[in-house]
Amino acid sequence: MKWEEQFAARTERIKSSTVREFLKHALKPGMISFAGGMPDPNLLPVQATAAASERIGKKYGAKALQYGQTEGIGELRELIAARFGKSGATAENVLITTGSQQALDLIGRVLLEEGDPVAVQNPTYLAALAAWRPYGVEFVTGESGWPLPETETRRPSLVYCIPNFQNPSGGSLSREERMRLTEYAGTRGVPLIEDDPYGELRYEGEALPSLLEMGSDLSGPILYVGTFSKVLAPGFRLGWIVGAPPLIKALAQAKQAMDLHTSTFCQYLALELLNDRSMAASIQRLCAAYRKKRDVMLEELREHMPGSAHWTEPAGGFFILLTLSKEMDGTELAQRALEEQVVVVPGIDFHVRGGKNTLRLSFSSAGEEEIRTGIRALARCVREKAPLDSRRAEAPALFAALQ
Amino acid sequence: MKWEEQFAARTERIKSSTVREFLKHALKPGMISFAGGMPDPNLLPVQATAAASERIGKKYGAKALQYGQTEGIGELRELIAARFGKSGATAENVLITTGSQQALDLIGRVLLEEGDPVAVQNPTYLAALAAWRPYGVEFVTGESGWPLPETETRRPSLVYCIPNFQNPSGGSLSREERMRLTEYAGTRGVPLIEDDPYGELRYEGEALPSLLEMGSDLSGPILYVGTFSKVLAPGFRLGWIVGAPPLIKALAQAKQAMDLHTSTFCQYLALELLNDRSMAASIQRLCAAYRKKRDVMLEELREHMPGSAHWTEPAGGFFILLTLSKEMDGTELAQRALEEQVVVVPGIDFHVRGGKNTLRLSFSSAGEEEIRTGIRALARCVREKAPLDSRRAEAPALFAALQ
Repeated sequence: MKWEEQFAARTERIKSSTVREFLKHALKPGMISFAGGMPDPNLLPVQATAAASERIGKKYGAKALQYGQTEGIGELRELIAARFGKSGATAENVLITTGSQQALDLIGRVLLEEGDPVAVQNPTYLAALAAWRPYGVEFVTGESGWPLPETETRRPSLVYCIPNFQNPSGGSLSREERMRLTEYAGTRGVPLIEDDPYGELRYEGEALPSLLEMGSDLSGPILYVGTFSKVLAPGFRLGWIVGAPPLIKALAQAKQAMDLHTSTFCQYLALELLNDRSMAASIQRLCAAYRKKRDVMLEELREHMPGSAHWTEPAGGFFILLTLSKEMDGTELAQRALEEQVVVVPGIDFHVRGGKNTLRLSFSSAGEEEIRTGIRALARCVREKAPLDSRRAEAPALFAALQ
Repeated sequence: MKWEEQFAARTERIKSSTVREFLKHALKPGMISFAGGMPDPNLLPVQATAAASERIGKKYGAKALQYGQTEGIGELRELIAARFGKSGATAENVLITTGSQQALDLIGRVLLEEGDPVAVQNPTYLAALAAWRPYGVEFVTGESGWPLPETETRRPSLVYCIPNFQNPSGGSLSREERMRLTEYAGTRGVPLIEDDPYGELRYEGEALPSLLEMGSDLSGPILYVGTFSKVLAPGFRLGWIVGAPPLIKALAQAKQAMDLHTSTFCQYLALELLNDRSMAASIQRLCAAYRKKRDVMLEELREHMPGSAHWTEPAGGFFILLTLSKEMDGTELAQRALEEQVVVVPGIDFHVRGGKNTLRLSFSSAGEEEIRTGIRALARCVREKAPLDSRRAEAPALFAALQ
């Protein structure tokens, strides 16, 4: 059977990403990986999860193994709503999703038509592009990484942004930028998606309010997307959406047809782990560990990269974006780095426009010594390929809005 | 914000099912539920799951909490492939999904275009209709519940069937019917979806081969959809697809954009539970318990239902379909039964055509005494509403092909 002939048109739009190919190399033994946005395995709650499973059996019995409501278990929805206490959120405003990836897909399914303009930061999260591309949308972006085009030919169907420690740039939106976006969404009635996987992983400075909390009220156009993948464990596949009840209802109906509901057992695991008194200390521990890794990576970049390269200096999250001199090709360089046992991903697939000369570096999963060895090897590759006369490139306007 | 104005056209196609409304009543205390296809909570592996979690921590550590490959963990894919040993299946033929509901949605996403004819048994699984309706397809069906229309105006884009103990009828396809379907799919090159959640729960008679194994080879048009929801636990949300590698690859790419991958922790839980030596005994125990419940329900139906009603007698699975005299309305009766603390679901939403006078009864989750009390109360409601002169209706041709 020639399966390709049976595929729907949308299947053709599902690109196999180059990034995915590089990620596969990260699984090989002996490789130093700066590739995925994976938590450090040493920081995952192995003992705590086994202990929580034991408690779940005793406290909830068969309920934790049974079918559940599409919206998610009540206690977990309440616990998430409480994070947005100031906004008056209740469980009605919360939908539990199978990772935040499903939240993005669901939003696309319910809101996006073929040909719709979707406004995104440039660069932006690759998997958001991948989630919405099958719906046949057109991605638009403004100057300097700002999501809104300067001259709007058509009103965007949604605006997507990662306000804190963005993937892949590591940059954050300022208070003024947050205000501009929420005002735009409110005035124009355009849904604004606030994707915030890294907000809790802040290594310095003070947290800014979420767009959802800055927006006038919870019946407004802002949808907050969260995940437990970075602070608990990606293997639970738990994300959530906070927003207006009529939209949450439509999203839940769509979700029911997609996977009925998210794993009940994993939801109870998260509930047990989050309710544990040690949770605040656990996040502090994560921040301390990732801060150290970030510092080591930045130190090595400063010491070993040629003047033609520059990079972002994130205040949190997992990522640094490395920009090489204009003539260089990030994909070629990532390929060359593999020979040195270093896995990085080319930045181009995160871009709607440009980005050929960029690489995304994640400092989250490698150990400190690996980071030192890996960045030194990467710097050798860059020097080897860098044009002799290239000087330190000017930091392009691209990220000005994202720092 | 008027969210309804923002919705995509496909969102309008997502019907809120009446069945869902009835299912909500099943959660209320004091209700006897014949509504959902839920396993008996007393048969769910509460202790075994806690013990498996403990072992997972020791054996796999952080790996069980980390991101994983979209296709699923290798060991689990191999274990599933081994079930189809005769067909020569390997891990390459297997994709792990977030419940079999996601398998259905994924198949729709990769294979179905707007306006495509999809051939289904009548009645058929409600949630398969719900999964494919958003893709704008047209459901077609033949006479007597057979999925293929007698006169084909357009070649169907896929054929869907549940060969064993179908939901909602409880009926199974005969060997000849299986042959006819696999031959049709092979000759015409039409993808044939074999959905088999209940095959292992057989209470009498001998198992017939799966369509996948009857088909000539694994590169052919047959896709087998399985689940661990009925023999392990629905709360893990674990299903799978077995089929030709090029299709598995396309499905995995689509899945990546939908939820990255299925919960790693739940996959390891299933692996541990399935590898436990007690698994075969556990399925025998399930069969003995559900057989007893089925027998009790059939006995009560025979004793208390008026002659105007008839019902299916399934050899396995969870469901009996009750057909009332033609004048009666299943939805009205289900509504009336609620007043008697009995929850059943109207059969109409499972039908592409007809079915107004049907009810689906699930004997899986209620206890034996509850089944007796519930069926007696239901029979009183039927007698109360049944036309005085109605005699036992002839078993309609509708299910002849499904017994």
